[in-house]
Parts: sequence; C-alpha cells; structure tokens
Amino acid sequence: MPEELKIVRALADIFGGGRDLRIGIGDDCAEIGVSKNALLVAADQVIENIHYDSRTAAYAAGQKLLLRNVSDVAAMGGTPRWAVLTVAVGKHDAQYVLDFCRGVAGAGKQWGVTVVGGDTAALPQAGCVATLTILGEASSSGSVTRSGARAGDFLYVTGKIGGSFASGRHLDFTPRLKEGRFLADHRLASAMLDVSDGLLLDASRLAQASGVALEIEPEKVPLHADASAPGAWSDGEDYELLFTSPKPLETVWPEDFAPLCRWGRCVEGDGELLNPGGSRFICGKLGYEH
Amino acid sequence: MPEELKIVRALADIFGGGRDLRIGIGDDCAEIGVSKNALLVAADQVIENIHYDSRTAAYAAGQKLLLRNVSDVAAMGGTPRWAVLTVAVGKHDAQYVLDFCRGVAGAGKQWGVTVVGGDTAALPQAGCVATLTILGEASSSGSVTRSGARAGDFLYVTGKIGGSFASGRHLDFTPRLKEGRFLADHRLASAMLDVSDGLLLDASRLAQASGVALEIEPEKVPLHADASAPGAWSDGEDYELLFTSPKPLETVWPEDFAPLCRWGRCVEGDGELLNPGGSRFICGKLGYEH
Repeated sequence: MPEELKIVRALADIFGGGRDLRIGIGDDCAEIGVSKNALLVAADQVIENIHYDSRTAAYAAGQKLLLRNVSDVAAMGGTPRWAVLTVAVGKHDAQYVLDFCRGVAGAGKQWGVTVVGGDTAALPQAGCVATLTILGEASSSGSVTRSGARAGDFLYVTGKIGGSFASGRHLDFTPRLKEGRFLADHRLASAMLDVSDGLLLDASRLAQASGVALEIEPEKVPLHADASAPGAWSDGEDYELLFTSPKPLETVWPEDFAPLCRWGRCVEGDGELLNPGGSRFICGKLGYEH
Repeated sequence: MPEELKIVRALADIFGGGRDLRIGIGDDCAEIGVSKNALLVAADQVIENIHYDSRTAAYAAGQKLLLRNVSDVAAMGGTPRWAVLTVAVGKHDAQYVLDFCRGVAGAGKQWGVTVVGGDTAALPQAGCVATLTILGEASSSGSVTRSGARAGDFLYVTGKIGGSFASGRHLDFTPRLKEGRFLADHRLASAMLDVSDGLLLDASRLAQASGVALEIEPEKVPLHADASAPGAWSDGEDYELLFTSPKPLETVWPEDFAPLCRWGRCVEGDGELLNPGGSRFICGKLGYEH
C-alpha cells in the first residue's frame, strides 16, 4: 500500500475507541482490558469474487465480514466486543480500503464491536482479501458448543432460510445475537451453530459433533419468499441459529425474537440425517463444501 | 477449498491444544481462559510474492508469519500466548496449506503460542494470503508503547541489522522476546517498537509518536556481514528492538541477551532525525513505505 501511513491515520478515526481499549491503533499491539476470564475467539474471511462479487460496494463487503463474525459469537451464546482487521488489496485505491473499513466500523457500532488493530497490505493481483478476528465474552452460564446434543433433544432453527446469496441478503443480515445469548444464559440449548454452509450440512455437522442422529422434517422450516425447497435447504449463508434443546421452547421464546421453528429431534446414532421413523434422509447436496 | 473438512481435522492435530484452551478448533469460536486482565492483540499478514517469493517453502512462510507477530508482542514487552490463523490459497494443494500450518505450529511451539482457531478459503487466483492474529499477556509492569520517549533518553537497538530479505533471514529470525520482557518488567524502556520497515523509518516513527527529535549515529549500529551502510539502515525486516531508555543500560544488560547498541539520544523536537549537534540528518530513503 503506497498510502499506508495515511490510511492508518484515517483508520484510527474510522474505528474510534472503546472504554476497555487501553492502547489503540498505531502501536505494535493493541491492549484491551478483559473483565471476564473466558474469552471467545473466531476468525472469518471475505474474498472478492468468492464471498462477494466485484459489483458489490466495498462498504457492504466490510459489513458482511463483521456480521459473519458476530454470528459466530452468537452461535456460542456470547457477546462480541473487539475485532482485529487485515485487508489486502490489488488494483483498488485507498478509497476502497477506507470504504471497506467504514463498513466494518458501521456494522461494528451497531453490534457493540470495536476494531482495535490490524494491518493493510498490497496483493500482487487485482482483488481484495480481508480477515476479521473477533473477540468476545462467553456467557457466564457457559458457552454452547456443537457437541452437546443428546438423544431426545428437539431440533430448532430461527428465522427463514434460502436464497441468501442470490438476493444479496448475505451482505446485510441480522446476526441472532440476543437469541443466542438468551439460550446460553438460561442454559436452554444443548448444542448450537449458525447456518453458514447450508441447513442440512450444518445439521449433519451438529449431529456428527454430538454423536447423535437427527430425524428431520426440513419442509417445516420457513423459506424466504424468493427461495424454494429443496434448494433452500443447502443454499447456505442464512446465518440463522440451528440448535437443540432438551425442552420445548415455544412457550418461553420471547415475542420480539426471530421466529422459532421446531423441525426435528435427536435420536441414537452417529451423525446421520433421518426421516421421521428412521429411514435414511436422501438429498442430492447437503450444502456448500468449501 | 474442496478438501476443507479434511484440512480442519488435520489442523486440530497439527495445532494441538494448550492448558487454557477450553474449546478448541472445530466449533464456531474457540474459548480461552485468560488469567491476566490486560490482553495484547496484533495481526500481521504474509502474502506470496509480496512478503515471500514463490520459491519459498510453505513451512518457512508459515514460520515467518508466526515470528512477525511474536516480534510485535515482544515490542510491547508482553508474552505471546494464542493465535488465530486464516489461510486463503489459489492453485496450491492441501499439502501446501498443511505445510504452511505446520510452519506456524512449529514456530508457535518454540515461542509458547497455541493456534486456537481460524479459517481456510479459496482465492480466485494463484497465490497465498495468510493472516495471523496474536493474543498475548501484557507485562504486569505495563506495556511499552511507541510514545513514551522524552528528551534526554538514550536510543538503543538490539542485534545486527541489514540484508534480511536478500539473505533469507526474514524467514527465520529470533524475536527479541526475553529482551522486550526484561525491559518492560523492570520499567527500563520509555518507548519501543520492532524494526520491521527500516531502522531509520522506524526510529522516525518512534520520534513522531513520542513528540521528540532524535540525534542519531547509525554508523554505530552493527551490520550483518552481508550488509552495508547506508542501505542496511533502510532495508527493514530486521525484527530487532528499537527503544529508548532514561538510563544507560550497558551495565544491567544480561550477557545472554542480543547485543545492545546505543546509537543516539532524544532531544526536544517533533519527530526529526538529526546529526549529533542538531543539523538535519539527510538520507535518501528512510525505509520501506508499504
């Protein structure tokens, strides 16, 4: 980046600071004050012409990167707090980098995340590759992993699914942060993840990690108006919460939360997807294996 | 990455776990137990054909990425503990990605850093772009920033400089971790950074951040046998510690540390580099402005 120093100065303004940020952008490391002792950490990338196409505004791409990471923290039941951002570009100007960072900062402000540091660099070819590492605080009731589902648990998903990439919803969605936190804080979920690679594929991952099989009825899951089954079951990038619970949750689920759909249950097994009754669930493609 | 799931499984083996790692690779987030409340965070990238050339072994490139980040923590006087890694490749096979990760893991083991999570993705073009975010614990005596130098302080640098990229030393160097920690723990350094973009450029950054001028004698700084002045003063990638101290340190500097060189002092000013006596220091190029 020929203009890196100028960019670093602009970034300090774009990202601002937070109350726990003791040393901010511009030094060798940032220093943050951590009040809880259980820290959540995740990282995700967005790559031009892989995770978004070249017509996408840099601001929207930056926003997507932040939202994807917030969704990962939501899927543990935690609270996102800080982020570290690296952006590498080729054939884009400084304005593109700043707009991308403004997208990260804008979505970060909305979801309580402060960017505390990072790096910019040049790519040898045209394009943009960006990585965001998110840091969050775990629920004091414990984090919800993928591996805690047990036979007898109910299978739920929030919201609607399908057609996220085609519709552009993948660029600007609502991470299910309050829903995830509610489930963790009240110890209502036995296993959880966010639907990034397809409802069926992510369900099978939860089942494998937990060592159960799932009897599923995906036709019960609400679809977006522009989506249709069975494609919607493997589209991916829905960023809804997929989780299991030993209790029925319909009566305790707050009204202002994303709608809840019970679409299966856990049975003895080893990661299989089954029809109700136990025959093997057959579907051409479970999701996006990338 | 067509083989991502296979890679994720291999990575859990390559990176292992650590005693504070409560939830490891394979969930939406990792969870770590943090015992100190001041957390250091930094991120750096390595990009094929920018930070290393295509003949470089993937293992060596991964090693460099880890070492660069350890050097950033050393420059604050802290202790590196955990890392999050993202790797995006095009036209490289899974073996390349695994070798890269083994390089990160190998250097991590040597320097006490556990990789706790990350992501792999495909690039639309040939090449490799990798980001590592490092987390560390701050010295309980406080971190050393770039901005604490005051008029009257002495200017020091560790080790030898010059010719790092041409010689290949940039791929396998010794981050000055014990030296940085010693300086922070005993409150001996008023400002510090690591020499990444060139001795003169990084000196001018320290001076600017601190609001002082520096009277310098760079000809006193030891050079590697394959390097010569004045080029060595702006080569960069030396990863030595550049710092200021209100006290002379020669008599307290441990014998098994990297050699210490006093090569200037801080005077009233605003970021200028000066000759002894106060005339402007003139040099064609201060360092690598990227």
